[in-house]
Amino acid sequence: MKFTCTRKDIVEAIQVVSKGLAPAKSDQPMLSTIYLHAHDTILEVQTNNYEIGVVYYLPATVDEPGKIALSGKYFQEVIRKLPDDIVRISYDDESHLATIRSGAANFTLLSLDAELFPVVEELKDGELKCTISSDVFNSLVKQTVSACSTSDSRPIFTGCNLQIDGTKLSMQATDTHQLALKNAEVEDAIDTQGETKSLIIPAKTLSGVMKDSTLGGLYTDIKIVSDYKQIGFEFDNIYIRSRLIEGNFPSLDNVIPEDFSTEVTVKIASLLNAVDRVSLISREDQLRIVNLDFKMGEVHISSDNKEVGSAEEIIPIKIDGAEIKIAFDSRFLLNALKALNGEFGRLSIAGDLRPMMLREKENEDFRYVITPVRTNEE
Amino acid sequence: MKFTCTRKDIVEAIQVVSKGLAPAKSDQPMLSTIYLHAHDTILEVQTNNYEIGVVYYLPATVDEPGKIALSGKYFQEVIRKLPDDIVRISYDDESHLATIRSGAANFTLLSLDAELFPVVEELKDGELKCTISSDVFNSLVKQTVSACSTSDSRPIFTGCNLQIDGTKLSMQATDTHQLALKNAEVEDAIDTQGETKSLIIPAKTLSGVMKDSTLGGLYTDIKIVSDYKQIGFEFDNIYIRSRLIEGNFPSLDNVIPEDFSTEVTVKIASLLNAVDRVSLISREDQLRIVNLDFKMGEVHISSDNKEVGSAEEIIPIKIDGAEIKIAFDSRFLLNALKALNGEFGRLSIAGDLRPMMLREKENEDFRYVITPVRTNEE
Repeated sequence: MKFTCTRKDIVEAIQVVSKGLAPAKSDQPMLSTIYLHAHDTILEVQTNNYEIGVVYYLPATVDEPGKIALSGKYFQEVIRKLPDDIVRISYDDESHLATIRSGAANFTLLSLDAELFPVVEELKDGELKCTISSDVFNSLVKQTVSACSTSDSRPIFTGCNLQIDGTKLSMQATDTHQLALKNAEVEDAIDTQGETKSLIIPAKTLSGVMKDSTLGGLYTDIKIVSDYKQIGFEFDNIYIRSRLIEGNFPSLDNVIPEDFSTEVTVKIASLLNAVDRVSLISREDQLRIVNLDFKMGEVHISSDNKEVGSAEEIIPIKIDGAEIKIAFDSRFLLNALKALNGEFGRLSIAGDLRPMMLREKENEDFRYVITPVRTNEE
Repeated sequence: MKFTCTRKDIVEAIQVVSKGLAPAKSDQPMLSTIYLHAHDTILEVQTNNYEIGVVYYLPATVDEPGKIALSGKYFQEVIRKLPDDIVRISYDDESHLATIRSGAANFTLLSLDAELFPVVEELKDGELKCTISSDVFNSLVKQTVSACSTSDSRPIFTGCNLQIDGTKLSMQATDTHQLALKNAEVEDAIDTQGETKSLIIPAKTLSGVMKDSTLGGLYTDIKIVSDYKQIGFEFDNIYIRSRLIEGNFPSLDNVIPEDFSTEVTVKIASLLNAVDRVSLISREDQLRIVNLDFKMGEVHISSDNKEVGSAEEIIPIKIDGAEIKIAFDSRFLLNALKALNGEFGRLSIAGDLRPMMLREKENEDFRYVITPVRTNEE
């Protein structure tokens, strides 16, 4: 194998594929390698840890086609430090050594047997096929993914549930303390055989697709194929294949509150910054409690920590309905406020022990619901 | 107590005094507090962990003089997040609560009994008094401090030895594997009672003085007073008092090699970057060995790691004397190269098991010496 490419391209390739690397101390060393396959005028850069597999295609001048599988850890570090804009990589079949040249630098890395690398196969025959623009797809991800659970105790909650029904898309996520629900519409109906289809996609996969599909800063089309066990995303020069999470995502309809006794309109950035500051004081606590006291014309945001002190901040609001005091874990409140777009948000409250719903000002397509905490205050 | 100051001033004060904070979980909570003393038109901000004490003076509108001692950890975080340019702090003697107000934010922090804070006393009656410009002082520190030991097993090597003799200053540091020696001259002779005086100053203190005395980006005069147990540094609106390290710093004269068989001139940045890259491969090793093979017109820099691969880079040099192969722990070689100023450096070698000396091109005032490692190569 022998090829030449630009450092810029291969640096970006490594950044994109790194999410598919198993930890360096994995039982299966092949899963922590970066696989390079040079053929025609292309270099394929791949990783695959069976959770997620990534392929990045870049232009290369290929003098001799071939495949190698190099230690992900070392290859990443070497590539990032190369001195010149041009990178030449060659491989000696007998010694199993790959040589990386750039400017005066000359590295030799041992290759594993590339024939044993679990090449990422494109999912072509999945029942579900559709194309979604990255701005639509990423708005679904961006506004919901923070509600996913980070604990493996209930795997189903470590992903977002994407529901597809014709032109209607819906993304849902919850860790049982917080819940996010975003609806979107596509122009061309997706063929779902007349049913509503549901795919639970791991949060890590979604964050990766969101990041990679905006690398150039422009919108792109994301082609999705799924057989309901695996999902493949194809866009620009990138292919990402991920397992789906098995199981039935619970219906969230009956946990979304409907009747509210208090409706509040508030500047999102003001409330976000105030909660961020006030929660400093309670940060040591397991719950990081922040109290919200909604009164006529203002909300008092406060926090207490017996050993440290207290914090209070007052923000103007518009309130309809009853005055109310309610307390939250500040992490969930901050997640919700960060997910809201626009200048003003709406908070809908049904009682101090009932979930609060956060929405954008004039938009019913996005809802974030957080559960309050019970405090000992009367 | 009641005063007003700018957020900018108090943020800078906290950044400067934080080096004098004991860890938050210290046995003596008072040593991890930030002490504020408002009087006249001044706010004094202090920390003191007995290793190092720091005072920062800033202008304040003092409505009521007084003293408080607040948890360093929380006070730092609160101050950094304040929303407005103006900060008002007041204290209620009965509740022991300090109130911090800025814009709509309102924090209350418990104060410890400020009368028990170990106020940093200025050293005034030390035998040694002198004023050194920050550019001279900092060049002494910057070029030597990386040679200090970071292990407490031999405390004397965790500081730099400052020798003063009239107009002559010399700073020395070593951890026994590497050694740095920098000489400088001051215009006005310092009164040392006709003797050469020696002060072993902790590396952490020196790094702090260097950083703080260039905060504004301009040169300043550093007034130094020492009684040979403690040292005080006064500059701008900052006072730093530090313990000195007890003991006799060993004479380094007889460990500095004098007769060399090979003299090399090399571009410092080229060698630094090449060693940085090549050492990637050996990074897992305890010693991080980099081999230098000095030949006519070029040096081959290389590194091997049986499990990973190898790296080589060739840099042009000018060589006088015998060709030679020598190997170093890359950390020491990188420290030495980073300490050198100017475009070209001189490497002087006496043998593959003898220390190598690194100097600037036309300057005998700075020497960095590193010990080679023995390799198993023929």
